[in-house]
Amino acid sequence: MKKRLKELAQWVGGTVVGDGEIEISGVAAIEEAQAGEITFVANPKYLPKLSETHASAIIVSKEVTQADKPLLCVTNPYLAFAKILTLFSHKPYQPKGIDSNTWISPTAKLGKDLTFYPFVYIGDRCSIGDRVTLYPGVYVGEDSSIGEDSILHSNVSIYSGTILGKRVILHSGVVVGSDGFGYVKEGKKNVKIPQVGRVEIEDDVEIGANTTIDRATFGKTIIRRGVKIDNLVQVAHNVVIGEDSILCAQVGISGSTKIGSNVTLAGQVGVVDHTEIGDNVMVGAQAGVTHRLPPNQGYVGSPALPHREFLRANAVFSKLPEMRKTLIEIEKRIKKIEEALSSGGKEK
Amino acid sequence: MKKRLKELAQWVGGTVVGDGEIEISGVAAIEEAQAGEITFVANPKYLPKLSETHASAIIVSKEVTQADKPLLCVTNPYLAFAKILTLFSHKPYQPKGIDSNTWISPTAKLGKDLTFYPFVYIGDRCSIGDRVTLYPGVYVGEDSSIGEDSILHSNVSIYSGTILGKRVILHSGVVVGSDGFGYVKEGKKNVKIPQVGRVEIEDDVEIGANTTIDRATFGKTIIRRGVKIDNLVQVAHNVVIGEDSILCAQVGISGSTKIGSNVTLAGQVGVVDHTEIGDNVMVGAQAGVTHRLPPNQGYVGSPALPHREFLRANAVFSKLPEMRKTLIEIEKRIKKIEEALSSGGKEK
Amino acid sequence: MKKRLKELAQWVGGTVVGDGEIEISGVAAIEEAQAGEITFVANPKYLPKLSETHASAIIVSKEVTQADKPLLCVTNPYLAFAKILTLFSHKPYQPKGIDSNTWISPTAKLGKDLTFYPFVYIGDRCSIGDRVTLYPGVYVGEDSSIGEDSILHSNVSIYSGTILGKRVILHSGVVVGSDGFGYVKEGKKNVKIPQVGRVEIEDDVEIGANTTIDRATFGKTIIRRGVKIDNLVQVAHNVVIGEDSILCAQVGISGSTKIGSNVTLAGQVGVVDHTEIGDNVMVGAQAGVTHRLPPNQGYVGSPALPHREFLRANAVFSKLPEMRKTLIEIEKRIKKIEEALSSGGKEK
Repeated sequence: MKKRLKELAQWVGGTVVGDGEIEISGVAAIEEAQAGEITFVANPKYLPKLSETHASAIIVSKEVTQADKPLLCVTNPYLAFAKILTLFSHKPYQPKGIDSNTWISPTAKLGKDLTFYPFVYIGDRCSIGDRVTLYPGVYVGEDSSIGEDSILHSNVSIYSGTILGKRVILHSGVVVGSDGFGYVKEGKKNVKIPQVGRVEIEDDVEIGANTTIDRATFGKTIIRRGVKIDNLVQVAHNVVIGEDSILCAQVGISGSTKIGSNVTLAGQVGVVDHTEIGDNVMVGAQAGVTHRLPPNQGYVGSPALPHREFLRANAVFSKLPEMRKTLIEIEKRIKKIEEALSSGGKEK
Repeated sequence: MKKRLKELAQWVGGTVVGDGEIEISGVAAIEEAQAGEITFVANPKYLPKLSETHASAIIVSKEVTQADKPLLCVTNPYLAFAKILTLFSHKPYQPKGIDSNTWISPTAKLGKDLTFYPFVYIGDRCSIGDRVTLYPGVYVGEDSSIGEDSILHSNVSIYSGTILGKRVILHSGVVVGSDGFGYVKEGKKNVKIPQVGRVEIEDDVEIGANTTIDRATFGKTIIRRGVKIDNLVQVAHNVVIGEDSILCAQVGISGSTKIGSNVTLAGQVGVVDHTEIGDNVMVGAQAGVTHRLPPNQGYVGSPALPHREFLRANAVFSKLPEMRKTLIEIEKRIKKIEEALSSGGKEK
Repeated sequence: MKKRLKELAQWVGGTVVGDGEIEISGVAAIEEAQAGEITFVANPKYLPKLSETHASAIIVSKEVTQADKPLLCVTNPYLAFAKILTLFSHKPYQPKGIDSNTWISPTAKLGKDLTFYPFVYIGDRCSIGDRVTLYPGVYVGEDSSIGEDSILHSNVSIYSGTILGKRVILHSGVVVGSDGFGYVKEGKKNVKIPQVGRVEIEDDVEIGANTTIDRATFGKTIIRRGVKIDNLVQVAHNVVIGEDSILCAQVGISGSTKIGSNVTLAGQVGVVDHTEIGDNVMVGAQAGVTHRLPPNQGYVGSPALPHREFLRANAVFSKLPEMRKTLIEIEKRIKKIEEALSSGGKEK
């Protein structure tokens, strides 16, 4: 596929500086781009690299107005790059049909134009939408439904009663609907609380490899529209994740916690059970959220503090030995002064 | 199924306040419960919700003695709830037989009334107890044994030589018996230490999705009776977990460490190798256990401190910038005083 | 298999103290070793146990020169133990052939002497080297290649376009080549950045159960020769891990970060994106690496500090409440002194 630069500008809503007629055949990173390809500079500190790249055109922000090469100037270069890369890398869906070495319940309801690889299992009364792709080793337990255009990669496990929306992508090894971790002590013994709820995942959610989403004790664990979850994340029973939120790798959310919309939790963040994180909150890597976080703020640390407060306190942390030494010295000096004053008093 | 309230009271060892003859047909959370269902209040702060629920009866603690609705009064409402929910949600086991699309070694010893789904693999000389359920994609390596009434969910991997007790539940993606992580440096190269031990999991253990339990270098990694492990937990080679202990999601236990009985490790806790955690210890979320923890205490922090000590120290953490400022001021004031005193001396 | 002690000494480059003619038939830990077996003492503090073991010979460091039993004296007892254990536990490879219940693309190129278990899937145009073992449930996406003598355990997922070197070992549930976690916000919506790169894993790499390695956005995520990765580790898109480095369980490396060679990251370490860790660095458990770490040093803490600096600061942490009290007291004493001095001045 080839596109003229001016066509790409139209596609992403930008303007061309230089020759808009040149043909672009692909997208690449600034160091690897070759003639015929377009690249991008999202971070102004990389602007000096503009003169070194072999790319034929460069996506830049609107502040950049001249260069040796044709420019595509946009408000958000990274977004324009994503859209152009999607344009070039997108392969139209071609259904491969249903392999004979699958096990599909006669009571399952199947859409059209499906792609089921070998070793797929579909349980009783499942409902599979049009153009769904199931890679080898996918297990779909009974009474589950999968919305159209969804892709479940190899070895994904969907427990019974799970609801997946449209255009959901689950990467390899994802487990959805496993039992919530609920026990109550009878003496020292752990008595299991049956987990009779389910999981609902809304449209346009993508979930990373080997992430686990537990079913609810009662009711539903809910992942709302547009949520993106990275690899090896744990989402416990009855959690609700609001629209467009982002959970980075190895995050863990404990039971019954509600995460607002447009929240970002960085890698390895942990959140306690039965709490709430407000909309638009950002939590820094490895933070431990132990209580309710109001919306529209940044937090970091374990236990989590407002971002600035943590940074200021943490800046002092490495100075603690010195502070302690100073404190001990000061005590001595004060004692000396006090003694001098009291003997001075006596001397009077 | 329906039960009279007085029958439920007998089942859990409680007493009825109000009409014991009403019929209960299910269990639900307090907000969702409908007429005919029973709900529960374990936390006294939710008692005000009693008047709002649509449930026909409520499980409460013995201190509660009156309400608009029939009460089931017990010592531990949460436990009674778990038992009644089990009563209502339990489905008697129905063997489904062995699907033809499995691979079972002719030397494997199979019990009766089994449920083997398609795409199950059973290696040579394995022994599978009565009423075992193996979901699609389960792999059982040679010389392993699985006790009766155990359930292995989809895509579980059991390496060779593993021993599973009775009523063991392994959720999807669990790996048991993978090689311990043992290398020794020869110069900079990592020389692998063969892992020739195995894993033994005792009766009534439940293990969450995508958790990994490594085989021992020599001897056994042991998970004792009644242990409950959440999702994405790492248990290294030669670890021993004592009876009835609880490991929450994303916990990591390093090699050769011994965890006592009735221990609780909260989410994302890490424990170093070759150490020991005493019986009845509770470790708070994200704590880092770097040395032996005596029994019967709570710990938190990384490195872990006794619970109270950590809370007191941590309360000061966010005040560090202010403390530092005070310290610098104090130094100035002392200097001034010292100068005043010494010049005072000179003036004399 | 039996070997004389003097033969073992030759094998590992050590010297015998005592009877070199005795026959050794196996290796065991010091407590479990029986007559006919050899054991080892790597840590001098276990030397007193020498007299208690039932082993027939003991591997020790060169400083030990006498004991009741024959000794094998070497520079590095742990290394010699690993080599002798390998000698005794190694089983020569026996190809089992290709099970009929596999799905192999007619365009795949297969080496000789293979072992493919049931339920294996090999995509179009894959290339599989000689003596490769694929356990049940392994999925290999199209255009991937696997070098000779590699072993992929059950339920491993290899996405399309992945390159695996020789003698690579992937434990159960490993996912290689899943999409990198890349989105860009358009308003609040997350627009996916297509991940068009791949993963390359070089020779002699071993990766633990349920670990995930994401493909690059462009170019390659690279795991270099001899790297050893433990269970449940996350390696993001475009990461490069240098030769012979060790990543312990539950480590997380964010996108585009470069790890040097011979680095050790202990359990649950997190590393931010777009940073660099120098050669021979050691990072302690649960540390959070937030910026570039120069080579040849140890770091710990979150955010990570040089090892000693962290230990010194952390030693003060639990003394913070006491320091705060002291500080408040000191302020009062100074105030008193200042008042005394100023009233003294007035009195003059």
